[in-house]
Amino acid sequence: MTRSKPRPRVDRKNLIIRRVSTYLRTLDHLQAKGVGIMSSRDFEKIEGVTQSLVRRDLAEFGTFGVRGVGYHVSELRDQLAHVLGLDRRRNVVLIGAGGFGSVLIHSESFKKRNLEVVQIFDQDPAHIGGSIEGIPVHDMAALEQELDADRIDMAIVAVAPPEVQGVIDRLGRLGVRGALYFASRAVRAPENMVVLNMDITVELGLLTYLLG
Amino acid sequence: MTRSKPRPRVDRKNLIIRRVSTYLRTLDHLQAKGVGIMSSRDFEKIEGVTQSLVRRDLAEFGTFGVRGVGYHVSELRDQLAHVLGLDRRRNVVLIGAGGFGSVLIHSESFKKRNLEVVQIFDQDPAHIGGSIEGIPVHDMAALEQELDADRIDMAIVAVAPPEVQGVIDRLGRLGVRGALYFASRAVRAPENMVVLNMDITVELGLLTYLLG
Repeated sequence: MTRSKPRPRVDRKNLIIRRVSTYLRTLDHLQAKGVGIMSSRDFEKIEGVTQSLVRRDLAEFGTFGVRGVGYHVSELRDQLAHVLGLDRRRNVVLIGAGGFGSVLIHSESFKKRNLEVVQIFDQDPAHIGGSIEGIPVHDMAALEQELDADRIDMAIVAVAPPEVQGVIDRLGRLGVRGALYFASRAVRAPENMVVLNMDITVELGLLTYLLG
Repeated sequence: MTRSKPRPRVDRKNLIIRRVSTYLRTLDHLQAKGVGIMSSRDFEKIEGVTQSLVRRDLAEFGTFGVRGVGYHVSELRDQLAHVLGLDRRRNVVLIGAGGFGSVLIHSESFKKRNLEVVQIFDQDPAHIGGSIEGIPVHDMAALEQELDADRIDMAIVAVAPPEVQGVIDRLGRLGVRGALYFASRAVRAPENMVVLNMDITVELGLLTYLLG
């Protein structure tokens, strides 16, 4: 194996951003329930993060809330969505329309986060030429011809583990700047591409460890 | 809202354990490829974690590898599986046999981690009474009667966000000690229960933040 530059590891800022994402989901939830004002103590109770950590996390991005009053839920919600870059629409390409991919596209998570799946690719002849939620499924073999790279902001990659690296490499060459994939497999991120991974086996390992 | 004790936040040890889980997946992968010996530099190249961090992480749990030689892949694999508590079988109950739950049960992730789904519960009459991969699907309404609590080590909860808290509470009362759920929603963990969450909206928020 040849030596290559290591990718940066998940750093402190990423942990803060992940927590801010959980504050945003809590604000969404409270807003839907009609709550107008909340305190950092409410974050502590709901998300299990201490009040002081909530305040420190928020202070990274500006001054929020009113001393002695708390946070205006809808205002803070919009401010944090802006911090996370979720206040404008992003176009998503979904790679893999099989089991997990099709669950994803029917989920509320994308729409709630202003993410719009605009293209789908799959290698299964049973899917190619069809459509999901009105979005046509293209042949993965024609990715280079069919991907609307100028329009795509990020990719959701729901393919089998052995295929992930190849898919990420092709997306990188086409100029796609970000991807999230779900396989239990490390990939090398192409230069100028942000690649994140959600791996259920990692959480399962943490769970069995904590259970002893 | 009443005040309650905050749950502990994800701490340093959990981060180490998550990284150790990724080392394990890399070892699995190298073992499958027939690699016998590896170095911490290989971890750096594959998982993007610096060699020194790999060494520090492993040093938390013992002395591994041979100076000047490296790590024996299959030996380190078994040692880390032991550290994570994955060297013995765990019985899993799956709550929710719909879209995501059914994808999960067909995935390799459980078996690779020595986790065996032994019971399934669902509230959908279309699933109740049927079976998935030979495992009967029970009625969620009969959880208290049908759950084989003595035998269950942990739960995988794949139900809609508004239902997660109720399901976790019921599992906690039945003595289930651990659960992993996937909704974009915080839950209060019952005492003596470890509850982990994988929330795709959190990763999507990190991705859009990093893309700017």
